[in-house]
Amino acid sequence: MSNKGSGNKTASPVVGMVGGGQLARMTHQAAIDLGIELLVLARSVEEPAVMAGAKVLLGNPDDLFALERLAEESDVLTLDHELVPATALQALAERGYRIRPRGEALLAAQDKLWARSRFAEWGLPVPEFTDLAPDPEAKLRRFGGRVGWPVVVKTRMGGYDGRGVQVAENLEEARPFIARASGRPLMAEAFVPMTREVALVGVRSPSGAWASYPLVETRQTDGICRELVMPAPVSRTVAARAEEIARTIAEALQATGIMATELFVTAEDRLVVNEIALRPHNSGHATIEGAVTSQFENHLRAVLDWPLGDTSLTRPASAMVNILGDRARSDPRTRLSHALEVLGARVHLYGKAPAPGRKLGHVTAFGESGEEALATARRCALILNGSA
Amino acid sequence: MSNKGSGNKTASPVVGMVGGGQLARMTHQAAIDLGIELLVLARSVEEPAVMAGAKVLLGNPDDLFALERLAEESDVLTLDHELVPATALQALAERGYRIRPRGEALLAAQDKLWARSRFAEWGLPVPEFTDLAPDPEAKLRRFGGRVGWPVVVKTRMGGYDGRGVQVAENLEEARPFIARASGRPLMAEAFVPMTREVALVGVRSPSGAWASYPLVETRQTDGICRELVMPAPVSRTVAARAEEIARTIAEALQATGIMATELFVTAEDRLVVNEIALRPHNSGHATIEGAVTSQFENHLRAVLDWPLGDTSLTRPASAMVNILGDRARSDPRTRLSHALEVLGARVHLYGKAPAPGRKLGHVTAFGESGEEALATARRCALILNGSA
Repeated sequence: MSNKGSGNKTASPVVGMVGGGQLARMTHQAAIDLGIELLVLARSVEEPAVMAGAKVLLGNPDDLFALERLAEESDVLTLDHELVPATALQALAERGYRIRPRGEALLAAQDKLWARSRFAEWGLPVPEFTDLAPDPEAKLRRFGGRVGWPVVVKTRMGGYDGRGVQVAENLEEARPFIARASGRPLMAEAFVPMTREVALVGVRSPSGAWASYPLVETRQTDGICRELVMPAPVSRTVAARAEEIARTIAEALQATGIMATELFVTAEDRLVVNEIALRPHNSGHATIEGAVTSQFENHLRAVLDWPLGDTSLTRPASAMVNILGDRARSDPRTRLSHALEVLGARVHLYGKAPAPGRKLGHVTAFGESGEEALATARRCALILNGSA
Repeated sequence: MSNKGSGNKTASPVVGMVGGGQLARMTHQAAIDLGIELLVLARSVEEPAVMAGAKVLLGNPDDLFALERLAEESDVLTLDHELVPATALQALAERGYRIRPRGEALLAAQDKLWARSRFAEWGLPVPEFTDLAPDPEAKLRRFGGRVGWPVVVKTRMGGYDGRGVQVAENLEEARPFIARASGRPLMAEAFVPMTREVALVGVRSPSGAWASYPLVETRQTDGICRELVMPAPVSRTVAARAEEIARTIAEALQATGIMATELFVTAEDRLVVNEIALRPHNSGHATIEGAVTSQFENHLRAVLDWPLGDTSLTRPASAMVNILGDRARSDPRTRLSHALEVLGARVHLYGKAPAPGRKLGHVTAFGESGEEALATARRCALILNGSA
């Protein structure tokens, strides 16, 4: 089997996914319903998707030979994470493999400076920003002087979940961050005072079809998403504008599959684009039960260029709480049967060994309002976290 | 690891399931969320649950050694089908393994005469019935003379999905059926003129907790369930009475896990118990999306003696249509991408090779009424069946 050529004629398509984390695990669950075989490229058989029964190729996501093997054994290649060289994906596409999303689009998720520049070009609202190369301290001093402090300093590439980002009140505060970067490319942005963070999960297919879920509000601590409510408690205007921004990006990038667009809402109800992800995303987890078609099924439909599924909500409101590992590395699984006493909460565990800050699972719940749903999800999550 | 002793202390319990069919496949999907490992005893790696990534022991369900190996490697042993010798399960229980449901309860699903006798003893509404042994023709003539023709003739054991049942207008019509049975035990029942068939899916845990889903209406053709609507369009009184009957049976049998009770509704709105199944059941498939907790997750919770999940509905009404193999053995998977155009329909394929009458998948849909939901599900199912 190969993804080259005019399309797979076998009954069960094979979707190759780079990475075997929880996103691949939940994609595998969705793949089962449609008779799709998910084949993941994972570093070990202990990865969440492999534990759940996805087929596996062992290898590294930055190994071109492993990537080509994955492409060769699948009908289409897609991603569970973005730590894949965009150039490798481009090279595979040039050899005739179906790669979705395409390497060029992936840059927008990998290189924050490239993304900011494109978003600005496309007329989308972004904070003022600058490249800090080649002399970070000098350039940061000038930028801070111009836009005013505090300033957000970021590594251009590789940061996520709060890593690789610092809000600095002045140059002094930024110095240790710059030193730790030890030459890796940095950029700076004006600090955006915001009232909320929101995310728009949309899905685009290669033939250009587009669908999006209602906007969600995400609540972060230390840069990690802890909770979300769906739909976000914002005006229709804000929600419609977020959808328009996300769609503009997806079209401009010719993205395929799920694309999550994270945005800030300011006190004046303005939206500012933060960053995007080109894969199923934490901010879409409430779609498993809260929408007719989950983000995972829609990602599969999109990369196979099948019709997109209904993204409408099944309940007035949903909420999700992430289960993160604690310092003591205690295991939520030992508290599961107690947590299941919380009626109406839906538990999703990822089968990972506990480690501090690691995403080990999530809990979803429902209600007439986001806050009501959140109260139920929190009750269950507190037990799983050992805090109840 | 073994299911003997005081309980599993490992983080991820192992549930052993005899059989690797679609029920095991969907149980595996539910197991992933709770970090449960499903280990199935299957005849081949081509069985639906194994294709979906459940762990597998190869062996036959009537092989005591294979069953003991399954029990030994799991924390609790349960069933995807009832073609397992009840005595084998009893023997394993005597050796200290946790077997849920217990072998004694299983008899009620295996031996129709035993079940009828118990139901009658417990004061539940059953049609008049009789054992046809040792002289089927003579006994059937007498029985027909007493209760009136037509009479339903059944094999006591082993029949399902319309196999092993015949409605005979007279003795003449029953003769070929009796001949084909070639000595296997037969029974006869009075024919019940009914207006609907309904099913009550309930779940009981070893500690006695009980929960049930709203009654569903099942629509059969040739004895095979084709469609269902949830909730069934019956009065509250009928629904409550069905629940009471199911609970009486579950308590009397000390059943554990999902138990489906199939009943007839007569023109006078009386209920008559038909038969029961002690496992997740086709009549519970709409609970995957239509209820907060699916029958598959609740089966897992019950056999592990964990708290039962919320069985309330998430939508006003759901409907399900089975996808059955046709005579030409055409493959619904080849029509999947077209079928996915039906917005709001949820497709579940079982990964089976097509064969006439074989259950290859099902479609669920939702609506304000059961008929509205059914219209959507049928539109999608017709495409999958190649009839649209």
